[in-house]
Amino acid sequence: MSLPPEFALIARHFRGLAGEGALDLQDDAAVITPPPGRELVLAADAMVEGVHYLPDDPPETVGRKLLRVNLSDLAAMGAEPLAYLMTTALPRGTPPDWLAGFASGLAEDQREFGIHVLGGDTVSIPGPACLSLTIIGTVPPGQALRRAGARAGDDLWVSGTIGDGALGLAVLQGRIKADGEGHLARRYRLPEPRLALGRALRGVARAAMDVSDGLAQDLGHLCRAGGVGAVLELSALPLSAPAAALVASDPDLRARLAAGGDDYELLFAADPADRERVEAASRAASTPATRVGRFTDGLASVTVLGPEGGAVSLPRGGWSHF
Amino acid sequence: MSLPPEFALIARHFRGLAGEGALDLQDDAAVITPPPGRELVLAADAMVEGVHYLPDDPPETVGRKLLRVNLSDLAAMGAEPLAYLMTTALPRGTPPDWLAGFASGLAEDQREFGIHVLGGDTVSIPGPACLSLTIIGTVPPGQALRRAGARAGDDLWVSGTIGDGALGLAVLQGRIKADGEGHLARRYRLPEPRLALGRALRGVARAAMDVSDGLAQDLGHLCRAGGVGAVLELSALPLSAPAAALVASDPDLRARLAAGGDDYELLFAADPADRERVEAASRAASTPATRVGRFTDGLASVTVLGPEGGAVSLPRGGWSHF
Repeated sequence: MSLPPEFALIARHFRGLAGEGALDLQDDAAVITPPPGRELVLAADAMVEGVHYLPDDPPETVGRKLLRVNLSDLAAMGAEPLAYLMTTALPRGTPPDWLAGFASGLAEDQREFGIHVLGGDTVSIPGPACLSLTIIGTVPPGQALRRAGARAGDDLWVSGTIGDGALGLAVLQGRIKADGEGHLARRYRLPEPRLALGRALRGVARAAMDVSDGLAQDLGHLCRAGGVGAVLELSALPLSAPAAALVASDPDLRARLAAGGDDYELLFAADPADRERVEAASRAASTPATRVGRFTDGLASVTVLGPEGGAVSLPRGGWSHF
Repeated sequence: MSLPPEFALIARHFRGLAGEGALDLQDDAAVITPPPGRELVLAADAMVEGVHYLPDDPPETVGRKLLRVNLSDLAAMGAEPLAYLMTTALPRGTPPDWLAGFASGLAEDQREFGIHVLGGDTVSIPGPACLSLTIIGTVPPGQALRRAGARAGDDLWVSGTIGDGALGLAVLQGRIKADGEGHLARRYRLPEPRLALGRALRGVARAAMDVSDGLAQDLGHLCRAGGVGAVLELSALPLSAPAAALVASDPDLRARLAAGGDDYELLFAADPADRERVEAASRAASTPATRVGRFTDGLASVTVLGPEGGAVSLPRGGWSHF
């Protein structure tokens, strides 16, 4: 009996991604021995064609983005990646080249992040591709970073640069023209999970999360979890050179960058007495970290200060699916 | 800042499903301590509206089926369920009642199977709903059932009854009329993961898998994994009363039942010297098990014997998505 085409596809493209415990993707499930003396950290994120990525994004970056948005959740917890499971719902007639590119992107990032696939499912969908990934990581017991824990008076920090992902999407959709379009588009298509910084912040940050739905909205989550408020200073937002150039010619853009999505940076709270420890973590992880405000009393109220120091309201509350 | 509707939906419907380690679904990931002295068993299956379930299936059974098809993978490995992660890609405008029903079905099966949700993601999709679940279970080290291991001469066993799921789909689509339609439709919508039998077969079965894509096709997988062939006797197929009545009036149907999908029964190999041990496992699990053939020499060749004892070919090789 020959293999039906579904299984041949999986065999051709995905079996090479399988690692220890995956049983060559030929069993009903994977079997792994959990690393001794560690807690497991688990998260799952889905991406839909036309919602989380563009239909003409290269399949290599689609695969890598799927992995990276999940790795970003591990980074936010200070966890180290171990392995993943993935389900792909693909339209019939998905070109074999697309699948090959998708798998090669996954293979590249498996090498970069030292992980492998454990299992999953491949099905057809009469609609846009729907990709789901479950990531598994580990932390020493009790050391996971959490969203709850920020205290009034804590510094508010963010990693990397803010706004590139949202600008990259706008560039790819033809809504804006910018110098450095390649950088911005790449930041949309290929987020950088801040795993090294997350690990270095264990025992330093009092609270942390990753920014995926817009800095201001996600800051609201961090405030609610901690029962505190926050002041965000737009003038302090770390911007890439292309983003800074755009802001220079359109100052109102700065506020929109704090409301855009697809940053996948870490947002975290730390005691002002720990500024040197944060900076040491940032250097150790080769990942910039910038103070962009402070936590305050006031339940879950986020105040955004404009460049002139007055409170401003943001154009929208961040990305929502419904 | 008020919660955007996406998060309110998740809070309303899914937070009550969260259990230990899920951190109330308010962090970027779950954190669990793996059960000491156990291996972890992990699988992921996706379901697409209109492909794996019918758009007018009750949302309660959609949620339960999503969980149960994944639990069936644990059953096939002889594993005990622990927890799960889930991503849901839903069309905008999905009625709140649908979500409430979906969540209440999950809640019911969480109680039945002693599991809880650890995390996941809820996104929108401009197309059919796409649901993905990652199940986590445990087994004592080295005791997971595997697909490889059947030997020529072993008995071929199957649990429960075969064909009800495929007939249930045909009933729901109006393609056939049958007495006992309620039973058949229920078997399509609500598979019964054979967890107790799977556990009882640890150390008894030499190879096992769950039947989801058609008995004959899945038997081919079991043969390939073991480097053996098999003879399947259609006359021995265990049929429910409604399925038997349909076969009585249309004898050709019997072969089609061996090629249908959605059985979620266990298919396994055991030494003929262990028939009493298999029967004891079956009684202990209150789950029927029936011998339906034997494994043979001959690499991955599956011979299907019709009721008169001659070889027959099946109408199609089972369900394939591509």
